[in-house]
Formats: sequence, C-alpha cells, structure tokens
Amino acid sequence: MSGSDITMMRIMGRWRAGASERLQEAALGLFSTRGYDGTTVAEIAAAAGVTERTFFRHYADKREVLFVAQTEFERAFLSALPETGDDPMRLIAVVLDGAAELFPEERRPWSRARQAVITTNVALQERELLKLSALAVSLTTALTARGIDPTSAALAAESGVTVFRTAFTAWVAEGEERTFPVLQQAVLTRLHTLIG
Amino acid sequence: MSGSDITMMRIMGRWRAGASERLQEAALGLFSTRGYDGTTVAEIAAAAGVTERTFFRHYADKREVLFVAQTEFERAFLSALPETGDDPMRLIAVVLDGAAELFPEERRPWSRARQAVITTNVALQERELLKLSALAVSLTTALTARGIDPTSAALAAESGVTVFRTAFTAWVAEGEERTFPVLQQAVLTRLHTLIG
Repeated sequence: MSGSDITMMRIMGRWRAGASERLQEAALGLFSTRGYDGTTVAEIAAAAGVTERTFFRHYADKREVLFVAQTEFERAFLSALPETGDDPMRLIAVVLDGAAELFPEERRPWSRARQAVITTNVALQERELLKLSALAVSLTTALTARGIDPTSAALAAESGVTVFRTAFTAWVAEGEERTFPVLQQAVLTRLHTLIG
Repeated sequence: MSGSDITMMRIMGRWRAGASERLQEAALGLFSTRGYDGTTVAEIAAAAGVTERTFFRHYADKREVLFVAQTEFERAFLSALPETGDDPMRLIAVVLDGAAELFPEERRPWSRARQAVITTNVALQERELLKLSALAVSLTTALTARGIDPTSAALAAESGVTVFRTAFTAWVAEGEERTFPVLQQAVLTRLHTLIG
C-alpha cells in the first residue's frame, strides 16, 4: 500500500460526519484522484451519498467545498487576541499561537491533500489568497479597534498572515515532520531577525 | 465640473495610444460609470473603436483588461534588484525604490479609478491578489538565486509586497497628496519600527 493510499484512507476515515463534511471528504478525494477540473458536482454528491440539490444547499459551487468556514477560520485567530496590550507584533504573536490549534497533527494529511489540489488550479489559488486577505483585514480591524494606528495595524496583521502562510506551506510540504506550532514560531523568529 | 469629471477627462485624454491601451481606457471608463458587471466586452470594444474580435486578440476576457503587463510590472521590481548584497531586507528596500518609478503623479488618477472598480468586485480583488502573490514568488526566486535561504527570501519578498501594497492603498486613497515614493519609504520605516 502506498503512502498516498494511506493518506486517502485517513481522509476517507472521516466519513462518519454530516452531509457537509461528507461532501468535503468526497470532493477532496475526487479532486486528488481525478483532478479538480475533471470532477463534477454530480460526482461529488454521488460519492457523498447525497443529491446534487443537497450539495447546493451546502455549497455555492465546486470551488467552495474546499473553502468552508471562513468565519470559524477567522475566529480561531480573533478569539486569541489578548484583551490588553498595545504592541501590535506582540499581540499578533499571541494570535498566531492561538490559531496554531487549528492545525493538529491529525489534520496534516487532509491539509496536505487539499494544498496539493489547490496548487493545480489558478481559481483555487485566487480563492485561497482571498481567504487570507480577508483574515488580514479582520485582524487589522481588530487591532485598530484597540487604538493601534491603521498603518501599524495593517502591517502587523499582514506580517502575521505572512508568518502563518509561510509556516503552513512548510507544514504541508512532503517530508516535513515538525509540528505547526514549532514551524510557526521558527518563522516568526526569523521575521524578527530579518527585519529587526 | 466635478472632480470625477476631471478625472475621467484625464483618463480619456490618453486615447492617442494603440488598440490595447484604448481598450484599457475604454474599459476603465465604462466600469467606472456603469459598473463592472454592467459592462460588456461588446461595449468596451465599441467605445474603443475596435471590433470584439480585436478585443479578444488583446485580452482573454473583461477582467484581464485591468491586469495587463504582469511581466512589465514584475520587471520594474526585478530589474532594480542590486547585483550584490546579502541582506534580504536591504535588497528589498532597493527593489521597492526602483519600482516606485511605475507610479508617477500623472498615473494617480488612472490608478485611483482602477482601484475604485476593483473594490466593487470580488473576482477583481482575487485577480489583484494573484498578481501580487506572483510578484512575491518572483522576488523570492530572485533572492534565493542570490544564495539567500528560502524562508528568509520568502519572508523578505512577502514583506516587500506588503509594504508596496500598503503604500499603494494609501496613494490611491481620496485626499492623499504625498507621492508614492514618499509613502512607500514611510511604510517601510514603520515596518522596521514595528518588527524590530
């Protein structure tokens, strides 16, 4: 059995969940094996054991299946923002620590498979960039609400997202074994060394 | 005559150029007045005095008219990269200085009108993010080719793009009068203060 078979089994192993999760798993499985362009909504619905109509109750289109829960994604960051403090990069460091909980080791096979699909398609890359850009905007707004000036807030938020994305890219790379929190801390330290 | 009339006249005043430039001007004029969604390729072509077939010889679709010359855009940055030096952020500072020449004062009305259209449409925002992401990748590659380690190269390149984008957003804001180079230098200084 190959490594990718094992990965797919791990992904498939999650099929106990509701229709929304089953559709995600089915979509990622099909995108990974047949390609994103070669997969239809009908096939995803069939693989998840639901009707197309059910698919469209959960997702606007094929692309959105890979981009669920922007609200939850952002909440993982925003809920970690300390109540007090006025050093933007210290606040961002705490935010990044909190968000790291989104990416435990058992999620790595799924994240890696998803990333592999995204790199094959420009529309998916654009959507991923929009997701991270929206996160930066939300973080900027939250920092500004703490009384931090808008330019500093935007730079700290964007830098935080850069650290997150760089660490995430490393985490899903084939062969990388360090955990997400370890990688993210190393990237943040590197940023301070570079720009300090 | 209102300020936006004057802006549109400045934009229209550029209509001496070739079909490609005329299509850009026509598209931006129509997008600004009728909205992006409310404008068709046929209308853009007619306003530029060319056929639809000519439109599609120059641009793949309506969206691409606002995203010409990725190659030229990136060249303005990459051509400024010094031949020597191994401090990534010093190299990026020189790159940003060089790229500032892309945005002289006479370009501000055009850039401002373009930005106003982009903020109205998610697909345009995604495309703009992809353009800047591609720039960061190119800068990362160029820095890595100088022997800089990949993580430092990526962080410096992303930070440079963040500074560029933050300065650009300020430059096209209504009422902002500082020049692009002045704004960009101020943002870069702020980043060093924040992260140092």
